[in-house]
Amino acid sequence: MSDILKQIDAVLEARKADTPESSYVASLYDKGVEKILKKVAEEAAETVMAAKDLQHSNGAKQDQEHLVYEIADLWFHTMVLLASQNLSSNDVTAELQRRFGLSGHDEKASRSE
Amino acid sequence: MSDILKQIDAVLEARKADTPESSYVASLYDKGVEKILKKVAEEAAETVMAAKDLQHSNGAKQDQEHLVYEIADLWFHTMVLLASQNLSSNDVTAELQRRFGLSGHDEKASRSE
Amino acid sequence: MSDILKQIDAVLEARKADTPESSYVASLYDKGVEKILKKVAEEAAETVMAAKDLQHSNGAKQDQEHLVYEIADLWFHTMVLLASQNLSSNDVTAELQRRFGLSGHDEKASRSE
Amino acid sequence: MSDILKQIDAVLEARKADTPESSYVASLYDKGVEKILKKVAEEAAETVMAAKDLQHSNGAKQDQEHLVYEIADLWFHTMVLLASQNLSSNDVTAELQRRFGLSGHDEKASRSE
Repeated sequence: MSDILKQIDAVLEARKADTPESSYVASLYDKGVEKILKKVAEEAAETVMAAKDLQHSNGAKQDQEHLVYEIADLWFHTMVLLASQNLSSNDVTAELQRRFGLSGHDEKASRSE
Repeated sequence: MSDILKQIDAVLEARKADTPESSYVASLYDKGVEKILKKVAEEAAETVMAAKDLQHSNGAKQDQEHLVYEIADLWFHTMVLLASQNLSSNDVTAELQRRFGLSGHDEKASRSE
Repeated sequence: MSDILKQIDAVLEARKADTPESSYVASLYDKGVEKILKKVAEEAAETVMAAKDLQHSNGAKQDQEHLVYEIADLWFHTMVLLASQNLSSNDVTAELQRRFGLSGHDEKASRSE
Repeated sequence: MSDILKQIDAVLEARKADTPESSYVASLYDKGVEKILKKVAEEAAETVMAAKDLQHSNGAKQDQEHLVYEIADLWFHTMVLLASQNLSSNDVTAELQRRFGLSGHDEKASRSE
C-alpha cells in the first residue's frame, strides 16, 4: 500500500514539466514556495479542526474519515513542498527509518523536543 | 522503505499500554488530543521556518536535511494523532491510493480546494 | 491611535447587515467560522514567514514593514472571528488589562504556560 | 482601555534589560525569534481549538471566555515578536489606521487577498 508514496513522488516530479495552467500541482510550483507553505499551514489547521470535530462527536465514523482526509491533504502538500525543493517522501521515510527502524527503540532518545 | 510507516504504527499502538512516564508517546496520549494537536501545529510551523531557511540559502544541503527532519516530525505527530483516534497511517495511504493510485489521474479532479 | 480597534469593531458589526457579495468581511461571515479560522491560520503562517525574512535580512526596513503588515492582517482576522461570535477587541484588551494593568506585575504569574 | 497595548509595549521594552531567568518574556528574547514564532503558532492553534469548542457548544459563556483568553495570548506573543524586532503594537495600530481610519471605507479595497 505504501508504495503509493513513491507513485505520488513520480507524479509530482512529472508535473515540473507542465504549464501552470495544466494542473493544480504545476500551478503551486509556479506560485512558489510561500504559496505551498500557506497550503501546508492551511491543511494543518484543517487537521486541527477535523480532530476537534471528532473529539466532540466521540469518534463518529464520518469525523474519522474527515480527519484521515485532512491528514492526507497535509501529507500531500508536504510532498509538493519536498518535490519543489528536489526532495521526496523517500527522504522523510529514510529519516523515520533512521529513528525507528534499526532496533525498535523508542524514538524518544533520538529526537530533540 | 515505506514499510517503516507500518512499523511506526505498531510502535504507536504498543505505547498505549505504557505508563505516561515510560515514553514520550505515552505521555502525549495521557495529555490528550489537544496536546497532540499543539505539537502538530508546532511541527507545521517548524516546517515553514525550515523551508524559509532553505529558500534563503538557495538550497544548502544542511537546510535540506533540516526540512526533511521537520517534515518527519510533522508526519510522526500526525501518526500519533491517528493512533490516539484508533486510526493509522494505513488509512492515510489508502486515501492517497484512492485519489492517485488507480489511473494515474492527477488528484486535481478528485479534491476540493 | 488605538481607538482604531474600536472603529474596526464598529465596522465589523455593521458588516453583519451586508450581503455576502457586498464586502470581504460579509463574505467571511457567510462562509462560516471554519473559513475565518483558515484565514487566521494562514495569517499566522504569513507572520512566521515575514519574521524569517526579517531575520535573514538582519532587520531590513522593508521586511520590518512586511512583518507589521502581516501582524495587522492577523489581528484583523482575529477581530472578524470575535465579531462572528458576538465578541470584540474590547474583550481582548480587557483580558490583557486584567493580566497587566492593575499593578504592573509581569503577566508571568497570571498565565498558564 | 486600549492604552493597555502601550503599557504592555513599555513592559516588553523594559524586559530587554532583564536576565533570562528573571521573567518569562526575557527568557523568550534569550531563546530567539524561532522560539517566539513557535509560541505564535501554538497560540494560533489554541485559538482555532477554542473557536471549535465554542462552535460545538453553541456559544457557551465559558467557551467565549476561553476564546478571548487564547486571542489575548496570541496578541501578546505577537507583541513579544514585535518588541524583539524593535517594533511595537503602535506600528500595527498605525497600519490598521492607514487601512480603515481615514474614510471609513471597507478595508477590502486596500488589501491583497
